[in-house]
Amino acid sequence: MKSSKPLCRASLGLLLGSLLATQGVSAAQPLDARASDPAALGLMQGFPPAAEQQVNFRNYLQFPRTRWSFSHIRELVPTVAVARGSVQVSALPRELRTDIDGLSIQVADGSSMTWEQSLAANYTDGIVVLHRGRIVYERYFGALQAERPHTAFSITKSFVGTLAAMLVEEGVLDDRAQVSHYVPELKTSAFGNATVRQVMDMTTGIRYSENYADPKAEVWEYGMAGHLMPRPAGYQGATSFYGFLQKVRPEGEHGQAFAYKTVNSDVLGWVVQRASGQSFTALLQERIWGKLGAEQDAYLMVDEVGTAFAGGGLNSSLRDMARFGEMMRNDGRFNGQQIVSSAVIADIRRGADPALFAKAGYKTLPGWSYRNMWWVAHDDHGVFAARGIYGQALYIDPKAEMVIARFASNPIAANGANDPVSLPAYAALARHLMGQ
Amino acid sequence: MKSSKPLCRASLGLLLGSLLATQGVSAAQPLDARASDPAALGLMQGFPPAAEQQVNFRNYLQFPRTRWSFSHIRELVPTVAVARGSVQVSALPRELRTDIDGLSIQVADGSSMTWEQSLAANYTDGIVVLHRGRIVYERYFGALQAERPHTAFSITKSFVGTLAAMLVEEGVLDDRAQVSHYVPELKTSAFGNATVRQVMDMTTGIRYSENYADPKAEVWEYGMAGHLMPRPAGYQGATSFYGFLQKVRPEGEHGQAFAYKTVNSDVLGWVVQRASGQSFTALLQERIWGKLGAEQDAYLMVDEVGTAFAGGGLNSSLRDMARFGEMMRNDGRFNGQQIVSSAVIADIRRGADPALFAKAGYKTLPGWSYRNMWWVAHDDHGVFAARGIYGQALYIDPKAEMVIARFASNPIAANGANDPVSLPAYAALARHLMGQ
Repeated sequence: MKSSKPLCRASLGLLLGSLLATQGVSAAQPLDARASDPAALGLMQGFPPAAEQQVNFRNYLQFPRTRWSFSHIRELVPTVAVARGSVQVSALPRELRTDIDGLSIQVADGSSMTWEQSLAANYTDGIVVLHRGRIVYERYFGALQAERPHTAFSITKSFVGTLAAMLVEEGVLDDRAQVSHYVPELKTSAFGNATVRQVMDMTTGIRYSENYADPKAEVWEYGMAGHLMPRPAGYQGATSFYGFLQKVRPEGEHGQAFAYKTVNSDVLGWVVQRASGQSFTALLQERIWGKLGAEQDAYLMVDEVGTAFAGGGLNSSLRDMARFGEMMRNDGRFNGQQIVSSAVIADIRRGADPALFAKAGYKTLPGWSYRNMWWVAHDDHGVFAARGIYGQALYIDPKAEMVIARFASNPIAANGANDPVSLPAYAALARHLMGQ
Repeated sequence: MKSSKPLCRASLGLLLGSLLATQGVSAAQPLDARASDPAALGLMQGFPPAAEQQVNFRNYLQFPRTRWSFSHIRELVPTVAVARGSVQVSALPRELRTDIDGLSIQVADGSSMTWEQSLAANYTDGIVVLHRGRIVYERYFGALQAERPHTAFSITKSFVGTLAAMLVEEGVLDDRAQVSHYVPELKTSAFGNATVRQVMDMTTGIRYSENYADPKAEVWEYGMAGHLMPRPAGYQGATSFYGFLQKVRPEGEHGQAFAYKTVNSDVLGWVVQRASGQSFTALLQERIWGKLGAEQDAYLMVDEVGTAFAGGGLNSSLRDMARFGEMMRNDGRFNGQQIVSSAVIADIRRGADPALFAKAGYKTLPGWSYRNMWWVAHDDHGVFAARGIYGQALYIDPKAEMVIARFASNPIAANGANDPVSLPAYAALARHLMGQ
């Protein structure tokens, strides 16, 4: 921990051990998708559930409890609604295809599996595939159901990035200005002299590790600051997201390399709120969610002072996430209206500089870049994606006219655990839908 | 505190002082409705709000912060959705009347005020009046809006009581059986040898004080058990609703007197869950909420093991609460279907024994009784009501064909603070709508 007021390290070590522990299995061999099904485990069954089957604030980030908790976040922490509004639900015609489950996928290690097997391999909780705006595939597993919001984790970032890009295009936000112009409280932090654009594309030079395998990584204090996880006795760290952000120190120079650090998204959320005079929640609702004809309200996790977690707090139903993806695929037009301008979509799809991205060393994402908090493939299909830890994905393939929305609860907190199977599967399905 | 493991009393005293304190005003003279408007006070304005304008888990039960928090409960504590489902919104035709605000009300102390003044006198956050199924009056104040759920507090009890009465009529639940038949864990508590009926009508003889003015009242440990409020350092009391219920000791005999004690509702919730095999949340959603054609999802506060607070955890929009009331007024029929059987409604409306009720000494409710967790007036209009602390009310006047749904945040936690104004106002409006 880099906090100037260090945590009680003994307590923290115990706490992290408890937060990260998998139950009754070794870390190397977690239960598989079927064995970790919450119903099979009896999680949260009974009135009340037996002690060993309870999922609560202290254990909800432990696999396999995640297989239940990721579909029940609001039952564990405070949240704010992102209302669907009083509009009609928008049509998502269904033309389910039966030729997808058996599709053969060659995954990154050279072995083969079927599409259906790939879902289990990645602990998929649910998946919706749109082709030309129609649902061609939809499955739910474990605790997830069509109506139930699931955590989208860092897919949230692409919402705040899109809103920021909209405000930039409208002239409400200047992406060349320094962060401290909008948020004077960040002046002495590492973000103070970064430009809004560097934050939007995550090329800030800051000291912040998001390595979940490292108990000293700053991501842990950040989670405790936002009260996404319990604080150890004697905790003296920040007690809000914005409190933490003000303490982040520089490391390296801004603008030199892409470095994926969640705190950038919350800085952007802060900037966007100050520039617009509206909360992230209100902006998301008014500008996007309330226009989609969503089936369900979405919601955001909030910290103890009511700040929504722009870095990863969104929860939504899968079909509604697919609606958002379909809007992005259609150059911002959906449900009879232009929701995001085509110029903003084009700016996202053009991506950023892959040379800056390459410095981050993502083996599974060669040639990609990160722009407006979207992952951009720079491939011949024009693929771009929103991605979240534990396997959340909104994958948009314009050439194949395909949108995949997927929620998951992979035991391993790294996209490297999903990409070797997921990315070949998505690409194979795209080719299949194109008749190739 | 009657707990066998007493709390640290010094900490508890400090905590309760903090929970109960009004801010910057004397307890005798709280800010009035206009001065305590959350917008006037700047509560939760800004990104982030200034420290003195923050509403958080530690202070949300303090007036005037309640004027914001009661419309934002889910942003402060974990909650579970009670889904409206995928049904069409049911029609609530609007025929707003302009002759209500000026209506003269003679309140209990003999003085007069207009209807509109009566709303401010009672810190009304919102009110919807239906006459013959049409909205004739609808107002929102402070933080409440038409789409926003507000805490219903003990109105929740009438939902669990109605569901229990439905299960009794269906033969799923035997109201003559002892509580311990359904919940063996309660066998050694005061509830063990009470009948389900005694719980449903709150005539159990138990040691539990709900006097919010008394820092030693058991209601405080109950709130901490359910984590509705912070626990002091060294807290050793119960950590779940059901954990607390098992510790409740007898006081007096069952069946001898009505005594309003919230724990009965949670015992009934437990019984209902065990008898039906469904959670209170699922039952409420399947049997009632999902059939009303509600505009919004409702939600329930949950404790740390996921148990919904049957005694007071419901939050809903006001129009949806009015829909529920209209269903009750129409002998259980609403939105094109029989939602609750007419026999159950008749059983509620017949009430219980007013002689047992009289022993509780409610000066504002002469001749009333309490049946299936509904308050029954036994008057010539057939009035029956669901009531919640701080002024929540669902008031049904069958003779006047009137339903009033009202949410409020009165500084004083007692219906004695609302009834002297509210009950005469409701009765006057009923006569007015009847053309008298």
